[in-house]
Amino acid sequence: MSSSLLEQLIEAFRVLPGVGQKSAQRMAYHVLERERAGGQRLSEALAVAVEKIGHCVRCRDFSETEVCATCASAAREAHLLCIVESPADRLAIEQATGYRGLYYVLQGRLSPLDGVGPRELGLDRLAQRLAEGEVQELIIATNPTVEGEATAHYLAQLARQHGVRPSRLAHGVPLGGELEYVDRGTLSHAFGSRGEMPE
Amino acid sequence: MSSSLLEQLIEAFRVLPGVGQKSAQRMAYHVLERERAGGQRLSEALAVAVEKIGHCVRCRDFSETEVCATCASAAREAHLLCIVESPADRLAIEQATGYRGLYYVLQGRLSPLDGVGPRELGLDRLAQRLAEGEVQELIIATNPTVEGEATAHYLAQLARQHGVRPSRLAHGVPLGGELEYVDRGTLSHAFGSRGEMPE
Ligand SMILES: [Zn+2]
Ligand SMILES: [Zn+2]
Repeated sequence: MSSSLLEQLIEAFRVLPGVGQKSAQRMAYHVLERERAGGQRLSEALAVAVEKIGHCVRCRDFSETEVCATCASAAREAHLLCIVESPADRLAIEQATGYRGLYYVLQGRLSPLDGVGPRELGLDRLAQRLAEGEVQELIIATNPTVEGEATAHYLAQLARQHGVRPSRLAHGVPLGGELEYVDRGTLSHAFGSRGEMPE
Repeated sequence: MSSSLLEQLIEAFRVLPGVGQKSAQRMAYHVLERERAGGQRLSEALAVAVEKIGHCVRCRDFSETEVCATCASAAREAHLLCIVESPADRLAIEQATGYRGLYYVLQGRLSPLDGVGPRELGLDRLAQRLAEGEVQELIIATNPTVEGEATAHYLAQLARQHGVRPSRLAHGVPLGGELEYVDRGTLSHAFGSRGEMPE
């Protein structure tokens, strides 16, 4: 490689998820060979986004305004609050389901060993919100990991303390999944949680 | 999605090769959640690269200086000139082989139907360079496509006109490839070009 600016660009692309040396090279060469205008646009979009996108004060999701469009919308059902670990989880639910309630983004999960407790996740603010009385159901959509489950149990208790009904996403065999390839924990849970077949 | 700056960032990522809507979302969220400093660096590296990286006047490869480091190097063997279609092809050869000669990047291939002739590929300048007498072998590494092969034939003639020996990368069964999965054209060529086994 002859150009140190080129090397810097390749190195900079490696900050992206799943992008190793080979992909970073391909990206840099592609932009320089065929997409200089697009590269310029990406540069500007990145600079603006990194500077201007903060977090909504209501739900802690990404937002360029103090309160995000979802929280500000009168069309969303304020008695449903879905709690997720990350903005990406929120996006996945918003895109996959017809959910019309509100969200709360933890920006993490309880992890005592890493010093992440209720305070670090802003759960005092969540408790305040539950105390306001508008929320009737707290849909707990933390990840089905050890820490995610521990967080879910904590949140369920918090909800009950404020007279809010906690619910949890169903676990089981994924649609289209083959039993043979489903992990044992999931399969065992799905078997134990079997329901009557509808006619 | 609540943020139009976020949407713009996701859209901007799609300029990268192999990046669809899903990957672009993951990249944007990853940068905003975990890599704001890296995103800032990528923004700057892109802006500088797009503005400052041009083409070497000798070999037409990417270069931030008038003559690239490879062309300017006294350590490279000036009697060998390897001709490729794109900067990415040059990089692949440089990284995969121990080649120590010079390069010439066509930035394309002959494609009469698209109006790409010898003039558009700067072959007059290549002819001049061959006429200078320093180059003894022209290693033609255009792609083994219809247009790449036509370009290779044209370049071989050009080389011979200037008393330069043309050579072509060997075609055949890829190392580690299984005959069963090699395409028919390659297999037929490899069979016809079989050589005696060394003892
Ligand atoms: Zn919000
Ligand atoms: Zn050069």
